[in-house]
Amino acid sequence: MRDVQSEKDERGIDIQRVGVNHVTLPFLIKEKGEGFQQVLANICFAVSLPKEYKGTHMSRFLEILEPWSKKPVAEEEMEKMLDNAMEYLQAESASIRISFTYFVEKIAPISLSHSLLNYNVFFEGEKKIAEPMDFTLGLSVPFTSLCPCSKEISRYGAHNQRSVCHVKIKFKRGYPCIWIEDLADILEKNASAPIYPLLKREDEKFVTEKAYENPKFVEDILRDNVIELRKLEGVHYFSLECENFESIHNHNAYAAHEEWVNE
Amino acid sequence: MRDVQSEKDERGIDIQRVGVNHVTLPFLIKEKGEGFQQVLANICFAVSLPKEYKGTHMSRFLEILEPWSKKPVAEEEMEKMLDNAMEYLQAESASIRISFTYFVEKIAPISLSHSLLNYNVFFEGEKKIAEPMDFTLGLSVPFTSLCPCSKEISRYGAHNQRSVCHVKIKFKRGYPCIWIEDLADILEKNASAPIYPLLKREDEKFVTEKAYENPKFVEDILRDNVIELRKLEGVHYFSLECENFESIHNHNAYAAHEEWVNE
Amino acid sequence: MRDVQSEKDERGIDIQRVGVNHVTLPFLIKEKGEGFQQVLANICFAVSLPKEYKGTHMSRFLEILEPWSKKPVAEEEMEKMLDNAMEYLQAESASIRISFTYFVEKIAPISLSHSLLNYNVFFEGEKKIAEPMDFTLGLSVPFTSLCPCSKEISRYGAHNQRSVCHVKIKFKRGYPCIWIEDLADILEKNASAPIYPLLKREDEKFVTEKAYENPKFVEDILRDNVIELRKLEGVHYFSLECENFESIHNHNAYAAHEEWVNE
Amino acid sequence: MRDVQSEKDERGIDIQRVGVNHVTLPFLIKEKGEGFQQVLANICFAVSLPKEYKGTHMSRFLEILEPWSKKPVAEEEMEKMLDNAMEYLQAESASIRISFTYFVEKIAPISLSHSLLNYNVFFEGEKKIAEPMDFTLGLSVPFTSLCPCSKEISRYGAHNQRSVCHVKIKFKRGYPCIWIEDLADILEKNASAPIYPLLKREDEKFVTEKAYENPKFVEDILRDNVIELRKLEGVHYFSLECENFESIHNHNAYAAHEEWVNE
Repeated sequence: MRDVQSEKDERGIDIQRVGVNHVTLPFLIKEKGEGFQQVLANICFAVSLPKEYKGTHMSRFLEILEPWSKKPVAEEEMEKMLDNAMEYLQAESASIRISFTYFVEKIAPISLSHSLLNYNVFFEGEKKIAEPMDFTLGLSVPFTSLCPCSKEISRYGAHNQRSVCHVKIKFKRGYPCIWIEDLADILEKNASAPIYPLLKREDEKFVTEKAYENPKFVEDILRDNVIELRKLEGVHYFSLECENFESIHNHNAYAAHEEWVNE
Repeated sequence: MRDVQSEKDERGIDIQRVGVNHVTLPFLIKEKGEGFQQVLANICFAVSLPKEYKGTHMSRFLEILEPWSKKPVAEEEMEKMLDNAMEYLQAESASIRISFTYFVEKIAPISLSHSLLNYNVFFEGEKKIAEPMDFTLGLSVPFTSLCPCSKEISRYGAHNQRSVCHVKIKFKRGYPCIWIEDLADILEKNASAPIYPLLKREDEKFVTEKAYENPKFVEDILRDNVIELRKLEGVHYFSLECENFESIHNHNAYAAHEEWVNE
Repeated sequence: MRDVQSEKDERGIDIQRVGVNHVTLPFLIKEKGEGFQQVLANICFAVSLPKEYKGTHMSRFLEILEPWSKKPVAEEEMEKMLDNAMEYLQAESASIRISFTYFVEKIAPISLSHSLLNYNVFFEGEKKIAEPMDFTLGLSVPFTSLCPCSKEISRYGAHNQRSVCHVKIKFKRGYPCIWIEDLADILEKNASAPIYPLLKREDEKFVTEKAYENPKFVEDILRDNVIELRKLEGVHYFSLECENFESIHNHNAYAAHEEWVNE
Repeated sequence: MRDVQSEKDERGIDIQRVGVNHVTLPFLIKEKGEGFQQVLANICFAVSLPKEYKGTHMSRFLEILEPWSKKPVAEEEMEKMLDNAMEYLQAESASIRISFTYFVEKIAPISLSHSLLNYNVFFEGEKKIAEPMDFTLGLSVPFTSLCPCSKEISRYGAHNQRSVCHVKIKFKRGYPCIWIEDLADILEKNASAPIYPLLKREDEKFVTEKAYENPKFVEDILRDNVIELRKLEGVHYFSLECENFESIHNHNAYAAHEEWVNE
């Protein structure tokens, strides 16, 4: 059977990324501590294609992914997936992005009730042959923000709303990436108040008052996060996008910032 | 050229709806008053298919829609579209749903600044041959809700958030359907506070205090809307779904209700 | 601390559904056979609220859900969740909808390669006190459709595309609901060809030829599914929505049908 | 009334972007030729915030946008919006992204029937004070792709599907940006076949055969587009992302590439 993909291409164009997108698989993700968590992964997996070849072999991405879906995955395992792909598909570079919902147990502040909060996460790895992998952790953290202007000018109350902060972070070679649990913790500490799935009445009183005592603009939350992320040992790059789903508008307040961190 | 669709089918199954979905076209929608507004319409348009025929002619739905996209549309024009479809496709019944974003000018409460608020709307028409069309207006109205429990139990502040109420409404034969502008107005009056795109500082003070003075559970908003909708002259059916994007949770508070209104 | 929700309401309106929406939790779903599968569940959970009460207690829905997330769930367990909710919240009726992605192993037709295909599924239960639960299974099955008209009129080739069929099904009291695996199988048999995540070249040849040998309009697929669903023992109700993401258009071909099945 | 936003900030952090996101407004977009087209715009509008200030004034973005929504907009007008924003908010830089659906009239290949095809478009402008604006045009073009491997190995037929190519393009100073209509035209010429909303039977035959005569991998489409974009006079940068919604899989084939073009 003719292998059209392997035929020679005459156009002289190296393609940066060719592969599969929106592959859906159950994956196991390593948790902070000893365990792991099963997630519903949405995967984009690609390799470079040298100018000599007409096409890549799309079925091989699936063949590589299927067995990895049964072993707990973190940075090290992603690097092996990329090595697999470069070897199997004779490519100079490869990249993978695994997006998933991840649960962390939260404890309500007064009743101490336990519940599971869902975060959107991605792991992204990019690798050139014979070089170490470049790894990016992406995390979206929901929280409560309360407007300082509204509090200041009003006789009582202050508008507040659900907000989200999307962070991407890279660490320098030799430094481990921060755990999802720890990064979520940093971002939640800089909110007007953190969010919990399960709050009893005494907890609701607590978070309402806490938010009122900690009014913050989207700019404040962003700046406080910048300060904390700069402090992380070995951090190489981070970007932050904070968005408040304004309770008084039908649009959002927005702030964004990125930095490459030098020695 | 053989017309496969028109061939005889032997399975003996009348199909209720066959047509096109997610057709995108610019449409003109009649406004309250004299004017009309251009909108980006997303359309689902279908007819019934008698058991004798193998298929309908999909291109004809597009042929019917294209010229109507240039004339201001309300109930009466939708009925003509359905009549066109039944005649052209020899069908016993037809239905159309036109979904779009509609703008209404809002005036800020103190500064009187003008701005345009966007609502999600749909018009749905269903018609059997030689019968009048059944028309449904769907409208989603965003607003602010403030939690009475949080206000009551906290020393200061109260959690509040953006909310949305989805309403569907039908009127009895001979009664005109309510205008989008008037239905939005009813729903906004029953919120803790309405939403405006443009608020100056004095307006922000006003809506913050207004929401604090009008704490309402999702249940309260639903009930107050039920009371108002029952009062509308000629109303035949309504459904309401209210959802609060809770600022203290990552999930929503939800209430739903529907009624057929008798004479 | 004052319990505002439990206070008396004077408006005289029974609310049909009050609860939480878009709660996200890991759940275990029973598989055909002995096992179970962990899924990412998106949950809408509500109860009725009698006219005497101002509000329901939203935190209790979370308290009920958390422990159930650790036990394999099917119809029987959902009925217990609804009983829990009605008892705990003193309600006359309750409803729950659990939406999730579910994986079924597919075997490629020639190479016999194994891979996991993802389906969108929901389980919906509605229950009145002292009555049995009404259960609905919802399943969305992707497949390939190939246009008979395009095949007939063209010298070679035929346009084909990814399609999806959304089915909802209810069974009569005393009859078990069909397994997801079996329902997917029925719908895939009525496609021009089924879909597989992993196809080797010999499989690609097989599915290409199979689709070309089985041209079907969206109407054909719908009708063949109606015939098969009517045959299921104990079926009480079904609805079907088939949609072809037409490769030659930017809109979809669409067919829908529902039936209550008598003895 | 105290102006909290204007107060001094001590954290020493310049913020790159602060503003509003998902503002929805009707906008007028200049068409190729003399006319303009009304669109539903989704807008992200931001400025930089110097470290001295606690916050920006969010209402001013709305004040700037409202009057511009009534004048036909292209590059020149966007630059004025950014100048307005920098002046009004005393900022060093500003950015705006206007996303919308744009219609172009298509003429069916044989019947010559006219219909309107919808494209997703964005205009993005970034500007530093006293520098010219950096402008990016983003366009997503739907089309038909037909698999060369499937055609080659199968006795008849070939799998094909709806695909989309997302392109972003920048031109050098002094060169006008390409029109949406012309960029769409280039990308459609490199497809297996273009897409039309309205096709009569003779047109369907034409596009079916055309696609079968032009089998192309996602890699082929990407490469042919690279070749054409390199030829554009004054082009400074482009990126391409092509995605095939594979009719035989539930995931997509994907290729991406970007280039900075030198003199």
